[in-house]
Amino acid sequence: MSRNQLSINFVNDVVAAIQNVVGAGQIALHEPNFDGNEWKYIKDCLDSNYVSSVGKYVDEFEQALVTYTGAKYAITVVNGTAALQIALKLAGVEQGDEVLIPALTFVATANAVSYLGAIPHFVDSEISTLGINTGKLREYLESNTELKAGACFNKESNRPIRALVPMHTFGHPSLLDEILLIGQEFNLAIVEDAAESLGSLYKGKHTGTFGKLGTLSFNGNKTITTGGGGAILTDNESLARRAKHITTTAKLPHKWEFDHDEIGFNFRMPNINAALGCAQIEKISDKIALKRRLFQNYKEAFSSISEVTLFEEPKNCHSNYWLQTIILNDQTEKFRDSILEETNLLGISTRPIWKLICDLGPYNNSPSMNLDVARKLSRQIINLPSSPSLFVGSK
Amino acid sequence: MSRNQLSINFVNDVVAAIQNVVGAGQIALHEPNFDGNEWKYIKDCLDSNYVSSVGKYVDEFEQALVTYTGAKYAITVVNGTAALQIALKLAGVEQGDEVLIPALTFVATANAVSYLGAIPHFVDSEISTLGINTGKLREYLESNTELKAGACFNKESNRPIRALVPMHTFGHPSLLDEILLIGQEFNLAIVEDAAESLGSLYKGKHTGTFGKLGTLSFNGNKTITTGGGGAILTDNESLARRAKHITTTAKLPHKWEFDHDEIGFNFRMPNINAALGCAQIEKISDKIALKRRLFQNYKEAFSSISEVTLFEEPKNCHSNYWLQTIILNDQTEKFRDSILEETNLLGISTRPIWKLICDLGPYNNSPSMNLDVARKLSRQIINLPSSPSLFVGSK
Repeated sequence: MSRNQLSINFVNDVVAAIQNVVGAGQIALHEPNFDGNEWKYIKDCLDSNYVSSVGKYVDEFEQALVTYTGAKYAITVVNGTAALQIALKLAGVEQGDEVLIPALTFVATANAVSYLGAIPHFVDSEISTLGINTGKLREYLESNTELKAGACFNKESNRPIRALVPMHTFGHPSLLDEILLIGQEFNLAIVEDAAESLGSLYKGKHTGTFGKLGTLSFNGNKTITTGGGGAILTDNESLARRAKHITTTAKLPHKWEFDHDEIGFNFRMPNINAALGCAQIEKISDKIALKRRLFQNYKEAFSSISEVTLFEEPKNCHSNYWLQTIILNDQTEKFRDSILEETNLLGISTRPIWKLICDLGPYNNSPSMNLDVARKLSRQIINLPSSPSLFVGSK
Repeated sequence: MSRNQLSINFVNDVVAAIQNVVGAGQIALHEPNFDGNEWKYIKDCLDSNYVSSVGKYVDEFEQALVTYTGAKYAITVVNGTAALQIALKLAGVEQGDEVLIPALTFVATANAVSYLGAIPHFVDSEISTLGINTGKLREYLESNTELKAGACFNKESNRPIRALVPMHTFGHPSLLDEILLIGQEFNLAIVEDAAESLGSLYKGKHTGTFGKLGTLSFNGNKTITTGGGGAILTDNESLARRAKHITTTAKLPHKWEFDHDEIGFNFRMPNINAALGCAQIEKISDKIALKRRLFQNYKEAFSSISEVTLFEEPKNCHSNYWLQTIILNDQTEKFRDSILEETNLLGISTRPIWKLICDLGPYNNSPSMNLDVARKLSRQIINLPSSPSLFVGSK
């Protein structure tokens, strides 16, 4: 068989494995479904005229998030980016500070840092979790930072590094024990970007509840959705109060007077979006169970393709498997674009992982450690259709 | 009759006049109603699974806004504050610039300036419009600014003043002809904060379409609502494109690749909120007609109370009468809080106008002109229940 023939066979095999799981027709990467109380709760909003800043669903959704995740407090906001911006601000990040974030994440992680006038500082990834490479990070911090007046300073830029943001990629928890230790040792606030990992557990505890604050997203492509929305999680009562205060224009309580004691934000989640969230979270365990079974289907389908690794939840973790992920190897990474092309032509939505943020124009000049692992993952990863409903569609 | 008795009579007369219009029971300041296609369109979102960034309603709502206002382009976003932040950015406002805004406005106007690292510079109000006092502003700019390299500089702070933001208070258009002239003369970009004035006309043309850019709000208390939402209006194609681009994370178009060419924002309006907007705007003319008839009811009810002025649309204007407004006089302003107390005790929501923004902690040190008119209005104004449905309830 010619080399060319071998290539075609490999691409065909991968595409066939995916089709074997998802079937034919237009298949989204991740779509929500609304088979619960969504319509009932939204109808209640319309019937009561409470669609905006008044109404019970915001409180109820926040309470449901508390009950589900075990965080002491949850504060809902308009989206995950706003949640991260506010969480970083409350963690003490100020203009001119640096914040350590993965180079391999969605651009919103870096943007949230930028909105505060702070500078993202890029960290390499780890192959076992797709998250922060804790071994490399520790070594890097030991060599490149110093503690001055209790704060961690970048020796090169002479700027304080205020926080470290683990992002739990595609729903898989990062190495949180190690990350918390690094936070303590180098005096970095830990703010978890759990936008993708609602419902994922690390040693039995929910992601988003390990750091000083954690943040969630309920965008349409997430495990549960509010149309657009996000939340801040924390166990700290005073941070929770501040989060609610500054995300609702920092208005002081009064029957009718307008008094605002700081520059607040208009980040309140509307009642109608929270109503959707209330219905969605009632079914989250079912959704995650289906997504985990979908993983098993992919595992079977890919069992005979040795050049491809289907990414499996890290040790001690129970992942929500937000996006199913295959990783090509050094020999097959050159077929990534052919696989993307073929599947998308067939109507099956697949996508590569993000470009490294440091390679995007606006972040070209941000500080960074060596990013060998992230760079390789950036070339080798493909996300597969991951909707919970796909499990039903499989044989 | 004792002086005390006179006071009690005045408060009672005002309360009775309000009750005469709105009736008894719990009366909101402004509540939406959903008697159109709201349910149908939202059900369509749920049935199609399109509640978030995919779906037809965002495009349709933007088109409906274009058709209704006559602006060439409309870009929907998560709320009015975000709309103003982006409009100011696109108008050229940068860190360290000053922006002229009314002292008498909702705090969001100032916050949007602050998010860009710019400084609000407060302008006095005019009694005939409740908006920018153009006479005082022109004199002030003549004395206190100078043109350097084509830009207007504050002689005291030596910072460039980049833009002027008229806010059309309670739906009443500011003196737009004069404002546009001042913009030309002093080289200030005009960005209209039309959050309250969708549907209000100045000389037959919609507010929000006079400036380089204009902004709208669809908060729950506005004339039409999307739960939470806002929009940017402009006639400039390249500004419109930039507005859409940077409010949707500045992602470059590609089938699957993630490339972002600037620090964008996650300000996209979710499809489900836009669906609400599509239904609401179909009925906007009816809503405004009812609000204008409600004004006539108040006019009749207050005709015999000479110490109170019911605010009427300015000359050459056709207002949406978003919030009905009475103005006490120098003798009766001391009864403002009694009137607020009495009405709210009865379940009738009334409220004072905002505190001057320069009197709020975070804006204490911002530059300001003399604010005599705004200060007096801030003491003398009360807003009355203004929902369109109240007209039906009146005799």
